[in-house]
Amino acid sequence: MTQKVLLLPGDGIGPEIAAQAARLLEACQNAGLDIEVEEALVGGSAFDAFGEPLPAETLEKAKAADAILLGAVGGPKWDKLDDLSKRPEKGLLGLRKNLGLFGNLRPALLYPQLASASSLKPELVAGLDIMIVRELTGGIYFGQPRGIEERNGERVGFNTYVYSESEIERIGRVAFEMAQKRGGKLCSVDKANVLEVTILWREVMERLAPEYPDVELSHMYVDNAAMQLVRAPKQFDVVVTGNMFGDILSDAAAMLTGSIGMLPSASLNESGQGMYEPCHGSAPDIAGQNVANPLAMMLSVAMMLRYSLDEPTLAERIEAAVGDVLDQGLRTADIAQPGEVHASTVEMGDAVLEAF
Amino acid sequence: MTQKVLLLPGDGIGPEIAAQAARLLEACQNAGLDIEVEEALVGGSAFDAFGEPLPAETLEKAKAADAILLGAVGGPKWDKLDDLSKRPEKGLLGLRKNLGLFGNLRPALLYPQLASASSLKPELVAGLDIMIVRELTGGIYFGQPRGIEERNGERVGFNTYVYSESEIERIGRVAFEMAQKRGGKLCSVDKANVLEVTILWREVMERLAPEYPDVELSHMYVDNAAMQLVRAPKQFDVVVTGNMFGDILSDAAAMLTGSIGMLPSASLNESGQGMYEPCHGSAPDIAGQNVANPLAMMLSVAMMLRYSLDEPTLAERIEAAVGDVLDQGLRTADIAQPGEVHASTVEMGDAVLEAF
Ligand SMILES: CC(C)[C@H](C(=O)O)[C@@H](O)C(=O)O
Ligand SMILES: CC(C)[C@H](C(=O)O)[C@@H](O)C(=O)O
Repeated sequence: MTQKVLLLPGDGIGPEIAAQAARLLEACQNAGLDIEVEEALVGGSAFDAFGEPLPAETLEKAKAADAILLGAVGGPKWDKLDDLSKRPEKGLLGLRKNLGLFGNLRPALLYPQLASASSLKPELVAGLDIMIVRELTGGIYFGQPRGIEERNGERVGFNTYVYSESEIERIGRVAFEMAQKRGGKLCSVDKANVLEVTILWREVMERLAPEYPDVELSHMYVDNAAMQLVRAPKQFDVVVTGNMFGDILSDAAAMLTGSIGMLPSASLNESGQGMYEPCHGSAPDIAGQNVANPLAMMLSVAMMLRYSLDEPTLAERIEAAVGDVLDQGLRTADIAQPGEVHASTVEMGDAVLEAF
Repeated sequence: MTQKVLLLPGDGIGPEIAAQAARLLEACQNAGLDIEVEEALVGGSAFDAFGEPLPAETLEKAKAADAILLGAVGGPKWDKLDDLSKRPEKGLLGLRKNLGLFGNLRPALLYPQLASASSLKPELVAGLDIMIVRELTGGIYFGQPRGIEERNGERVGFNTYVYSESEIERIGRVAFEMAQKRGGKLCSVDKANVLEVTILWREVMERLAPEYPDVELSHMYVDNAAMQLVRAPKQFDVVVTGNMFGDILSDAAAMLTGSIGMLPSASLNESGQGMYEPCHGSAPDIAGQNVANPLAMMLSVAMMLRYSLDEPTLAERIEAAVGDVLDQGLRTADIAQPGEVHASTVEMGDAVLEAF
């Protein structure tokens, strides 16, 4: 049966890197992959065209798709929109929430060819391979009540950090299963010495642990986790945490590799439907210049093939092709060493397709 | 007039490092400083003695003091206490809240003698000197409502992230003034693309900016700030943020120096009363072994002399003495290089006193 892939280029460098992903999808089709690819607008570009960051048509197409590939959303052009509900980010958050994409997988993987790009000393990051499992449809991102209102003669802003047992259990199981497939170590990050919501979080993780006897569960406060990521990142295998802490820690972890332009991510719902996107943002400062690194986006295609389309062999071929291209020495500006020649977005895309 | 200093050794390594601070205070008295030093219990040790992490007597003494020196609180012994209000951390949080210590100053300073201890490449951290200004009596740490309760047949945990305009303005002014005294750059960290409370935060910072024309204000999302601290920490001068983000970022920033055992912090209220403590925790694993680094605690005395007791000359003498000791090559275990001889807590204290 033909599976449906929805491509959402988004804003900034999104369209350029999405174009390389589209070429890769075509190559997969030529290699026998039975998919149908559609495109739609999301984020600032959707706001410009339809006045909404997540138009109804885009949401419909997303619901109908087996997997979604997203470039990136956002940019200074839309940052001044007073109405938060119109900002590009709401397109992304709306997709996550409406599709129930609660399980966000953010690998922080150091490519040996790029080891010198890390700001950490080589011995601390050589072989780094962390998987951050971030809850993506709950927590303070979506908690009610929220807003800004007048109280005692001044304005007060408020948001609610909330998790139910079932939400915690659901993401916990994703993380335990991930740890089983990897190194068998799971670190749950919370702030249980201060926040009640994370006391419940810790309790549920503890309750699940006996069901996964092959996984060694530990707990860490979020401030310590931020320190340990800087101090000795290789101590981590799988990390599980809520939406807000996951946002912060996954970006810090990704940056440890020095090559955030290399890192894909997956956001999955309960039926295995997924949205795949690079960890980097829309990089408006370099948009339209054919210099952005398309590899995270192309590796997002690989992740999609593995997690949503059940095509591990094609996924491996893409990952191997990316490895080849790095071995050949091709580098976009973001991963180049001083003095190295910079490949363009399209040249990098060409090289991956050739190696595929 | 005799000023009052309250020494709160606390838990874990707290008493050992507090003992070195006490000797230093004595030396300051001998050098003419007119203070009266008292001691009291807080945290787990207070719980063990009185069943409360912040006994009424301790709070009274704290209120009466001109400045407070705190070692550290917490340890695994008390982590299993189901009642969060009895945990050692509540002693610390109670002091902050009851004394109105809203302005937390957390310097992340790289000592040139210890540059190699950083996990970052030397060129990225040489000369690092960041001041993180963290709001300490509001935000999600203290927001109501909070708790764990039954909803729709399951338990739900919740906390409230809340700031009023006046709270934001108050910490904003501390940060702007700090930036005026330092490099003139202030970066306000928020998550204004998602959280309403931080939209208000950003707005108030913007509103204050014209009053400090000599300060260059910028804004950064917290996830990006965590990345930028890893990627290029020297871009920061003063950073201002709320309680929770400040907890995470100040620890990450401190760890960049590789020597968290060197970093003091100050928590100030509106009348200049302050509590001073090392950035590191109670390190229960090495407690009682005479190996903990007392320098952050001794530098906390210097910070106290500068910010609360108006004795900048004595503060400088302490800082110079610490510099001398490092120049002499003395190193406790936490800041030693492999193969170096380790000084004990007391030896380090001796050396600082001698150099003072
Ligand atoms: C763009 C923003 C809303 C988003 C988030 O905070 O989740 C991004 O930072 C991410 O991590 O995917
Ligand atoms: C011990 C804990 C409550 C405290 C905090 O989270 O504020 C500590 O981490 C700190 O940063 O001083």
